[in-house]
Amino acid sequence: MLERDFIEIPDLHFNIEILVSAPPVIASRLRFDCTPKGKFLGLEVNGRKVSFAENVFYEFRDKKIRQVWSVIDKPAIEAQLHGSDRK
Amino acid sequence: MLERDFIEIPDLHFNIEILVSAPPVIASRLRFDCTPKGKFLGLEVNGRKVSFAENVFYEFRDKKIRQVWSVIDKPAIEAQLHGSDRK
Repeated sequence: MLERDFIEIPDLHFNIEILVSAPPVIASRLRFDCTPKGKFLGLEVNGRKVSFAENVFYEFRDKKIRQVWSVIDKPAIEAQLHGSDRK
Repeated sequence: MLERDFIEIPDLHFNIEILVSAPPVIASRLRFDCTPKGKFLGLEVNGRKVSFAENVFYEFRDKKIRQVWSVIDKPAIEAQLHGSDRK
């Protein structure tokens, strides 16, 4: 999953805005400023720079991520794409 | 904010799927099964039943919520509305 993310988004970085740890669960609010090459979440981003948040829970077991519950702020990306369409 | 939510969504309940507490921050994954009366998040829900998750961080100070960072799974709602349109 992550490998494909880095192929599709060459400048992918995970910026941690909030981190809450209560083992076995870690919750984080991540901020992304990146330029997906093609489609992202079904949206035609095509190399435009987008900024968005992801609120995510990771459940760990045996030092590995076992389950992920993620919500990405896709409407924020849509708003940015529509904004740049109008320019 | 909450009062308006309950007016617009009479059957609103907050079902906690995940709760992570690390004061002053609480993180939660909430699940909603509800029927917003009219528009919700800009979508024409109009009394249809929708189910969606919200991943949210609350920062507390003096026993009150001081800041909220929320991401709602709006695409899940859109998918349900499009599904019911096709019926």
